[in-house]
Amino acid sequence: VSQNPLQSYEKLQAIFYKDIRSPETRQALEECFTFASEFLARVERVELGTPARKKPRRQRQGESLETLAQEHPIRGKQYFAFHRGKRISRAVNKSLYSPPSLKKWRKLVTTLDRGDVASAGMTAKEITKLIYSVAMSFCCAIDLLKRGDQQRPGTFFGYLISHLVASRFGVNPQRELPLVNIEVESHLPTDFTFDVPGSGGRRRKFHLPLKTSTRERAIQIFAHQAMLDNAHGRRIFAAIPVILGETKTDQNKREVIEICLPKQWRLYQRHLAHLARVYYLDIPEAYRQLSHGQPPIIVKEFGEFFFEADELAP
Amino acid sequence: VSQNPLQSYEKLQAIFYKDIRSPETRQALEECFTFASEFLARVERVELGTPARKKPRRQRQGESLETLAQEHPIRGKQYFAFHRGKRISRAVNKSLYSPPSLKKWRKLVTTLDRGDVASAGMTAKEITKLIYSVAMSFCCAIDLLKRGDQQRPGTFFGYLISHLVASRFGVNPQRELPLVNIEVESHLPTDFTFDVPGSGGRRRKFHLPLKTSTRERAIQIFAHQAMLDNAHGRRIFAAIPVILGETKTDQNKREVIEICLPKQWRLYQRHLAHLARVYYLDIPEAYRQLSHGQPPIIVKEFGEFFFEADELAP
Repeated sequence: VSQNPLQSYEKLQAIFYKDIRSPETRQALEECFTFASEFLARVERVELGTPARKKPRRQRQGESLETLAQEHPIRGKQYFAFHRGKRISRAVNKSLYSPPSLKKWRKLVTTLDRGDVASAGMTAKEITKLIYSVAMSFCCAIDLLKRGDQQRPGTFFGYLISHLVASRFGVNPQRELPLVNIEVESHLPTDFTFDVPGSGGRRRKFHLPLKTSTRERAIQIFAHQAMLDNAHGRRIFAAIPVILGETKTDQNKREVIEICLPKQWRLYQRHLAHLARVYYLDIPEAYRQLSHGQPPIIVKEFGEFFFEADELAP
Repeated sequence: VSQNPLQSYEKLQAIFYKDIRSPETRQALEECFTFASEFLARVERVELGTPARKKPRRQRQGESLETLAQEHPIRGKQYFAFHRGKRISRAVNKSLYSPPSLKKWRKLVTTLDRGDVASAGMTAKEITKLIYSVAMSFCCAIDLLKRGDQQRPGTFFGYLISHLVASRFGVNPQRELPLVNIEVESHLPTDFTFDVPGSGGRRRKFHLPLKTSTRERAIQIFAHQAMLDNAHGRRIFAAIPVILGETKTDQNKREVIEICLPKQWRLYQRHLAHLARVYYLDIPEAYRQLSHGQPPIIVKEFGEFFFEADELAP
């Protein structure tokens, strides 16, 4: 067994799509975050600040909606970064992160397999923290080991979340793209979708975009859901994106901000497509408030998913 | 009168929205590209190559559609870049660019004001070349004068194209956002829209996204059009985006490629929203072929717009 999270990742990548829920996939995931966490235990940490509040710039006519991404200083949350040589990792939420416990992880996933998450004795908040810590361990290790690599952290996050969701639903995601049509010459796979057996022969379909952050690209998620709605009919697929966070770190100033577009999200939810939930591991304050607006966008921490998964339906 | 394109740009920015079609706006535009062009006459040029064709990577399940942006080596088009000190500008198409002629520009805009573009005696191709050269002069000057500045080139391109389109239509763009709704607490301006008087009291509405490039963000254009369709009804607004090009330059290797997602565009056109036209100043080969596919996406050089503007209607 290798002690290097990069080698574990390669192993994970080689076997993942054979069976997303298999014990082998789970073991490869465990190796990735265990070795990443062992690596991070040997590096420094640095505190991150946040800038003073800036007055948001008024948008001019002719500018795209997404140009007006708002940079929010972060209040009420503390962040640090892992630090090694000249490099620092992405920002880590202090109150959510602790080196992930393999024992807790195994307790959680075992109860997911049994379809009885309540018996793990963990709250939604505790599950969120555990999964946040697992994801962050690997992402931060890659930040320090492979400068500028966005691909591995994003792919690992997709593997991790889809493994957990597939375990909870008791089925693997669909292999076929639900937007394929007879004229298209080649397949164009896309976000994960799940076709989950329900009670009374009913099937529930889920659309599961997975992103480490969306920033000014969140319109993609709504637009993909709109395409599913247009191709299949409305409310056939329930969109439940899972996102790690929306922080952005200024490496030189050692400051962290959140990039959010709450007004744009309301327009998307009203005029583009309906998202059933938006799950975050680290919820940005600007999006938490969207649950109370009109139209509401229900933003929750990801740990809640495991308890409400049976009630989520198109 | 200043000889610096940056100062001319500031003047343009200060007056532009007072009246997009005014002689003052036009004069400020002329100063920007004239001084930019004089600046560029004094700098070097370097030839750009293009890499060997790479085999496109197969997309994996769980990856977003837009992750599979294709990097196309460019065949049949030659590019150079302006060069000064350690900096090189964006890639410039050799067969489209020549230092812009103020005489030709004035002939074109005068006939636009009269509603009689044919009397300029210029073909669609010649108009495309002229506007390409005007836009590229300013963008390349900024590339060399302000390292990493994407904002000024993008804004100037928006000013230039909206001035020309407003002159052709004989009306300024709308000041109000057509997505505003009574619950939204503040205005959210967006892409330019035009409300053009037609024959018999009929009005024609246009949605005009303006981008120097779209790359993997083209879904924004389709999604904004889908929001207009959902808010106002289908085929009320005709979407006619105008885009400069899709090139990307590797500064170190001095190579240029085009970033295109033709298969994704077909899915967007089929399932998300209908674009009436896509106008390019420098059409990427991969998109030119979209006119012949199913569903067709009519991609044309921007010069064509001035001749067919009266036939474009929702």
